[in-house]
Amino acid sequence: MARKRLLDSIDSPSDVKKLSADQLDRLCAEIREELIETISKNGGHLASNLGTVELTLALHRVFDSPQDKIVWDVGHQCYTHKLITGRRDSFHTIRKKDGLSGFPKPYESEHDAFVAGHSSTSVSVALGMAQAMRCQGDKHTAVAVIGDGSMTGGMVYEALNNAGRSMCNLVVVLNDNNMSISKNVGALSKYLTDLRTKPAYFRLKDFVERVLLKIPLVGKRLCETIWRSKRTLKYMLYKNTMFEDFGFVYLGPVDGHDIQKLTDVLERAKQMHCPVFVHVNTVKGKGYSYAEENPGAYHGVSQFDAKVGTTEDVEANFSSVFGRTLSKLADKNDRICAITAAMKYGTGLQYFSTHHKNRLYDVGIAEEHAVAFAAGLAKAGMIPVFAVYSTFLQRGYDQIVHDVALSGQKIILAVDRAGIVGDDGETHQGVFDVSFLSAVPGLTIYSPSNYAELRICLHEAVSNGNIHGCAVRYPRGKQHGEAGSITAVKGHLLCTTGDTLADILLVSYGRLIYECREAAQLLREKGIRVDFLKLVQIKPIENSVLDEMIAYRKIYFVEEGMQSGGIAEHILAGLEERGFTGKYHIRAIQDFVPHQSVTEALVSLGMDAQGLCAWIEETERFLS
Amino acid sequence: MARKRLLDSIDSPSDVKKLSADQLDRLCAEIREELIETISKNGGHLASNLGTVELTLALHRVFDSPQDKIVWDVGHQCYTHKLITGRRDSFHTIRKKDGLSGFPKPYESEHDAFVAGHSSTSVSVALGMAQAMRCQGDKHTAVAVIGDGSMTGGMVYEALNNAGRSMCNLVVVLNDNNMSISKNVGALSKYLTDLRTKPAYFRLKDFVERVLLKIPLVGKRLCETIWRSKRTLKYMLYKNTMFEDFGFVYLGPVDGHDIQKLTDVLERAKQMHCPVFVHVNTVKGKGYSYAEENPGAYHGVSQFDAKVGTTEDVEANFSSVFGRTLSKLADKNDRICAITAAMKYGTGLQYFSTHHKNRLYDVGIAEEHAVAFAAGLAKAGMIPVFAVYSTFLQRGYDQIVHDVALSGQKIILAVDRAGIVGDDGETHQGVFDVSFLSAVPGLTIYSPSNYAELRICLHEAVSNGNIHGCAVRYPRGKQHGEAGSITAVKGHLLCTTGDTLADILLVSYGRLIYECREAAQLLREKGIRVDFLKLVQIKPIENSVLDEMIAYRKIYFVEEGMQSGGIAEHILAGLEERGFTGKYHIRAIQDFVPHQSVTEALVSLGMDAQGLCAWIEETERFLS
Repeated sequence: MARKRLLDSIDSPSDVKKLSADQLDRLCAEIREELIETISKNGGHLASNLGTVELTLALHRVFDSPQDKIVWDVGHQCYTHKLITGRRDSFHTIRKKDGLSGFPKPYESEHDAFVAGHSSTSVSVALGMAQAMRCQGDKHTAVAVIGDGSMTGGMVYEALNNAGRSMCNLVVVLNDNNMSISKNVGALSKYLTDLRTKPAYFRLKDFVERVLLKIPLVGKRLCETIWRSKRTLKYMLYKNTMFEDFGFVYLGPVDGHDIQKLTDVLERAKQMHCPVFVHVNTVKGKGYSYAEENPGAYHGVSQFDAKVGTTEDVEANFSSVFGRTLSKLADKNDRICAITAAMKYGTGLQYFSTHHKNRLYDVGIAEEHAVAFAAGLAKAGMIPVFAVYSTFLQRGYDQIVHDVALSGQKIILAVDRAGIVGDDGETHQGVFDVSFLSAVPGLTIYSPSNYAELRICLHEAVSNGNIHGCAVRYPRGKQHGEAGSITAVKGHLLCTTGDTLADILLVSYGRLIYECREAAQLLREKGIRVDFLKLVQIKPIENSVLDEMIAYRKIYFVEEGMQSGGIAEHILAGLEERGFTGKYHIRAIQDFVPHQSVTEALVSLGMDAQGLCAWIEETERFLS
Repeated sequence: MARKRLLDSIDSPSDVKKLSADQLDRLCAEIREELIETISKNGGHLASNLGTVELTLALHRVFDSPQDKIVWDVGHQCYTHKLITGRRDSFHTIRKKDGLSGFPKPYESEHDAFVAGHSSTSVSVALGMAQAMRCQGDKHTAVAVIGDGSMTGGMVYEALNNAGRSMCNLVVVLNDNNMSISKNVGALSKYLTDLRTKPAYFRLKDFVERVLLKIPLVGKRLCETIWRSKRTLKYMLYKNTMFEDFGFVYLGPVDGHDIQKLTDVLERAKQMHCPVFVHVNTVKGKGYSYAEENPGAYHGVSQFDAKVGTTEDVEANFSSVFGRTLSKLADKNDRICAITAAMKYGTGLQYFSTHHKNRLYDVGIAEEHAVAFAAGLAKAGMIPVFAVYSTFLQRGYDQIVHDVALSGQKIILAVDRAGIVGDDGETHQGVFDVSFLSAVPGLTIYSPSNYAELRICLHEAVSNGNIHGCAVRYPRGKQHGEAGSITAVKGHLLCTTGDTLADILLVSYGRLIYECREAAQLLREKGIRVDFLKLVQIKPIENSVLDEMIAYRKIYFVEEGMQSGGIAEHILAGLEERGFTGKYHIRAIQDFVPHQSVTEALVSLGMDAQGLCAWIEETERFLS
């Protein structure tokens, strides 16, 4: 019989506090086993969780959650935290519908101090909590745990600028694994590497003293003078990281897989009662050889066989089709360049990189910069394509308005993961982009439903001189199995289901069009004839499309995005203006959509074929 | 007869290049005279322009615009640039309808390299241009000119992180006057002050050498050893600012009012052909005693008498009413705290500060941080109110979705300058907030039309436990002269114009309601009876409001914001769902709105009483 797991006796952080050094080591091993087993079944963020096992235990040894607030940046590294805060037994449900979320969620546990999912928010949030506690006379500490990748987001500097002089009980733990999701880039990465690998380079003290002490007679005296001095040199010897410039006490770097050292340094940080920056070195994927060797591939994974590791999915998906198409377009046009915010692989730009490495800019997790940088590139003659997940593009909204649209720069936003994204859940759903983009003057928006249309739209976006700012948005994953049959060569495609127009028109865009087609078939079997209209160019809507729609008596519009500000409401206003007198029904998203598979989400939203069929059937029956 | 002005002979930057030192001094004096005279007549940004006269001339002496790209951050300091790039004769039209813009506008002149208006974009944009030039084999330089206030925006760090290692011909000029719009705050400000006032503090070289050379016999040898060494100490002596950590060559600090020194250092920066950071010290308001003494008051000014300076406007406006009301609410509730992004005075928070200094957080120009920080404050028990201009809130969109709404934090967004803002123009119009906020689940939005309603809404937002995330939006300036007469005590107010309902209903919110009332009167005189409905709570719209609307045969909706995603389209969908069969017409904003007075803008948009009257009259005549 297998030895009983220590992990099974850990019901709360206080149980971790009781363990001996040996027991902690055993617990780490058990946690890694659990992580690998569960993530290989459910998918999830493997490498980052393997890298933070010891750090998580040390944090919970030193701090008293939930009174002390542990704020996880991005949050995908919180699995160990979940395992030891009362969620061990439901851990197998992680990322499944109605199961645990893959990200911190306060409604799951009081130990999840704050929601996360997007990058670089933790220092701001933790500072807010620390200030609130200070206002209320609460002496506890707020801790932000942030990766070096998240440090490329400018919001962190806004927060550091405010935190350093705040006198709050705030500890920022930098989990430095020299990786963001892709290989980390930029000056900061180099700077952290210097701190990490050559501490003496920034810690002059040893060197200076070594040099001075060599000097006969006066050397020792000089050293003493410096020690006693209140002057520049002493200051420089002891205070010389950027984080100290921001007003933090800097501690580190410390080995992130040595629980005792971590505990000691965190304890010291806690006792200081001021803003402290703790620099921790970890190895992403620690303890699982496949992941250590290739942490990028194990950042976010689907199901895999734990014994042999993940295997690369060689099938095409929207991202790879985008990357390959853009690369081909760039073969013929050397003004085309591509930008990613630390998502080269996620967005399919590795295919572009192979052939056009010099024209790919990975800017780090810096969507604001990415958009304004693209605007600068465009103004000086390039055609920049920024490939970005819909949910992260929210960060660049102001720049789209102010730097791109206002001056009519031709940049192309390749909006990946548009619509429901599945098990990452509510922080990651790409359901706002149509709303916020369609209010921006002069922007053209395409929402292709299959690979062929994606290629057409990209080609059009790049080569049509009348198109300025432009977004091409497409869903996560693969196209529908029978995708090719209803490819629109122009901006829209109307499919009639008989010789004459039906009374009813079902309208949509993106991948939902396949659900619409199936719903039309189902309805036909029930004796209700429905035509359907696929929009590919969803903004602006041409008058000819409105004219085609106006011929129908009843229009049903289904939209995989927020209703408010969506295309359905906008088209209704356009139809109204043209004297439409029929009935108009909208099914769109009204609220945040929790984690579950895409298929499950579409069912729960009533946007699958069956749901659409039922909606129309019931409405028609009610009306008649 | 007055001596002919040198300024009148300056038609392009090449004319500046020809001037002697004496002539340059004379030109500076003439420019300052012109600035004070014109801004005192037209209003505008005085202090920042007075501070950058010499810097602008030096930039144009060294760089060859438009081949070299000068990108002004925020852009309100570009007046001297406009004066010497062919726009002297139209300078008197600045900020007037159809006149020069108060910000850089490429359509005005090829010397305006890029649009500006919002803060902290210049390094990203200039880097984009520098990269584009590099790709195209163009050896010219892109120059970003950025103030220390703008350095508090995180986007700058995203850009520096990418720029430092880019090998581009990029010069970042830090125009450091130790002021953002309000007094600058945060760790960075202290850091820059240290650099500025104690260069030796960061420039160890002198000190170390002085100490070492004092040592008999070995001192000189030791110095030589260090000079020859490739080691740490030498590195530290010459490379020890944060900007060097980011990979820039750091030059400065240099006196920003000494043209020759400025010219020398900029020339050196240009010759380096790599990313260079030039630190320039300037005095905001330089040369105009009133402005030097109180640069904050002369940041953005209305018309004033140049001889006696500005006088404080003591009349109430929406901002001051907000600030005073919030202060009173905070008297009774110590959980209330306020946040500003460097706009304490602009948002009226000086009135809050007087009584609750400890509960006011000025976070710098850092809207992303402000929103997430507020979310942290709220989660830990406070009621934070973030007062921010509508146009700048665009920066915090993602945080509103991800950090506030998703976890249902109760924070209050006090959205100032909502709607048309007047002469600041298209970069500053607050016409997007309704669109982007109304798609966010769970957010309540109020749009009061007068001071009384603003007070009611704020009180409701703070004290109603059912309201979570909430925006209270109000226009720039003062309420309508006869405002009090139609104050809504609840979420909406229907004004009928007879004993029975009219056929026609005119619907709006915010200050436009006064135009609606007047339009209804005008129409009545023409024999057309129109009721009007004022919405104060514009999201969510209660069913009872829709029920009242549905009783009308024709509804006209006028909205001082973007149509797409606005309230008009959203209400139409709600009416449609309830079986509305009447006609519905929308007048809203479709495109960017250029600079002009608010009154002029409303006329040009057809949203003044006359315009609304004409719209309804014509539509009715056409339909009948």
